[in-house]
Amino acid sequence: MAAGQINEVALQIPQFQDVLAARDRTAGHIHRTPVLTSRMLDELSGAELFFKCENLQKAGAFKARGAANAVFGLSDAAAARGVATHSSGNHGSCLAWAAGRRGIPCTVVMPHSAPQAKKDAVLGYGARLVECEPSTSSREAVFAGVLAGTGADFIHPYNDPRVIAGQGTCALELADQVSGLDAVIAPIGGGGMISGTCLTLSQIAPAVRIYAAEPEQADDACRSLKAGRIIADDAPQTIADGLKVPLKELTWHFVQRHVTDILTVSEEEIVAAMLLIWKRLKIVMEPSSAVPLAAVLKHKNLFAGQRLGIIITGGNVDLTRLPWMQKGLP
Amino acid sequence: MAAGQINEVALQIPQFQDVLAARDRTAGHIHRTPVLTSRMLDELSGAELFFKCENLQKAGAFKARGAANAVFGLSDAAAARGVATHSSGNHGSCLAWAAGRRGIPCTVVMPHSAPQAKKDAVLGYGARLVECEPSTSSREAVFAGVLAGTGADFIHPYNDPRVIAGQGTCALELADQVSGLDAVIAPIGGGGMISGTCLTLSQIAPAVRIYAAEPEQADDACRSLKAGRIIADDAPQTIADGLKVPLKELTWHFVQRHVTDILTVSEEEIVAAMLLIWKRLKIVMEPSSAVPLAAVLKHKNLFAGQRLGIIITGGNVDLTRLPWMQKGLP
Repeated sequence: MAAGQINEVALQIPQFQDVLAARDRTAGHIHRTPVLTSRMLDELSGAELFFKCENLQKAGAFKARGAANAVFGLSDAAAARGVATHSSGNHGSCLAWAAGRRGIPCTVVMPHSAPQAKKDAVLGYGARLVECEPSTSSREAVFAGVLAGTGADFIHPYNDPRVIAGQGTCALELADQVSGLDAVIAPIGGGGMISGTCLTLSQIAPAVRIYAAEPEQADDACRSLKAGRIIADDAPQTIADGLKVPLKELTWHFVQRHVTDILTVSEEEIVAAMLLIWKRLKIVMEPSSAVPLAAVLKHKNLFAGQRLGIIITGGNVDLTRLPWMQKGLP
Repeated sequence: MAAGQINEVALQIPQFQDVLAARDRTAGHIHRTPVLTSRMLDELSGAELFFKCENLQKAGAFKARGAANAVFGLSDAAAARGVATHSSGNHGSCLAWAAGRRGIPCTVVMPHSAPQAKKDAVLGYGARLVECEPSTSSREAVFAGVLAGTGADFIHPYNDPRVIAGQGTCALELADQVSGLDAVIAPIGGGGMISGTCLTLSQIAPAVRIYAAEPEQADDACRSLKAGRIIADDAPQTIADGLKVPLKELTWHFVQRHVTDILTVSEEEIVAAMLLIWKRLKIVMEPSSAVPLAAVLKHKNLFAGQRLGIIITGGNVDLTRLPWMQKGLP
């Protein structure tokens, strides 16, 4: 990427007023998700844990916030041309959901090898699905064709100020629901949720520490923070499939300024934490969403006796392929 | 049971003031559980559905309400002798939980053939587990010995005015959380939740219709309502294992006076509704809790265009033995 492009992006850093605007813009569309607690998980962690349940969000993920903010912020003329993205994860289905709410066209580009359930989710919300080969070159070529053919607005899964401002509404709610938080921890993949959290909390509660949690097997954000520059892995493998993507300029901006530390956990620790949450909080959530609790249980000394917000980011999981079945865990 | 005993029980019919007292007594101990909604489930049912999530209640079931009300309503002298019950279901673990909260002895009698997870739940809350043979005669003999040996207060799973008043706090919350309800539907086994719902709504919102939902394979309450007297089945078999027990005098009192109808559903309809709730509401709940949605989807004409409260009664399910895995459903 040329320096000029970086500067162009730098001009688009979202501000706190964008979060407030996002809150007002999306109020009638998204859920104010509940915060759950568990005495047993408190005892296990030695802290007071407040789980912000974005798995109970519209379309099953926090990404409905950013998608709704982007879609409902479009002018009528831009909206008529529709939106597009490339994603085989929650952003694709959440953008399809948001576009369906506004009644505008949406195209999602996805490799033909993506799970049928992901394709069905996008189609179920009324969006158009365009399949590409499972390679970056094919995706970029196909996606460029979609943009050229439709004039649609590209809504990136996280490297977009409208998306980050939308995700920032989650921390706004959490701070309203739970007083006196000492820290907040969220998973980090591309960094959209963490960036929105930084954007909001640095303004309204700057003393609250912000941690990110990441799989050891996809620890590019952790290594980026240590190196002081974005490090992108090539195709990392982890059960936390929402966290494989790298940081980009906008999210790196927030991570390097506001994140206290990035904690990593093993695959086994992720599965064990996921099972604990299912059993104790009685919620359906994705492996990615278990990464923060796994990190808290691994690093109890960092949070002893503190009030800690944990973002449960999404709940779209294949109920017929749960990890403790494949691994024979209890 | 002799007529004199029935009259004695009749004197103990809980009143609405007992629900208000239960609410105040249990306020610091139980969760005010969230109400979840899903546009997709609204569309599927043709109604507006408000799911009251008692699976997110303490100890994972609404029975924490009745148990807490009974336990915290005891005099210090009675509390010192402890409480006891026979239950291999949620009442046993919820009573153990409540007794643990107050720090008093609790004994739960359970057949040795009960699932280890149920035994572990009771033990995990610090209660004493006493095993009996899996027969009514053994259970009664063992339980009589427990009462004689401890002087404990017997807290019946549902045929107890303190328990019914406690369950009535759920409808009190629901009516506060959702305005303008046309009807409420809950599963029926012994009838504790339905009775508490009747007790509360007949007082504060008498126009709200109350439906019960029951498995076809354990439809004793439905047949009781038609016959005008309690009919008890011998060992019915259903995946909704919380709903196998029969009505008793106290719950029959409320059912016959206040329940509009009892709707029955097949095993397949229960599993399909359970999967729908897991997928769409992203919550972990028991087969018993899926019976009301199954009934709503089967009897759409009864609820078309209406605002309907659905009680999700509990979330204690074996995560390694989910029904769609055993049956090969998607």
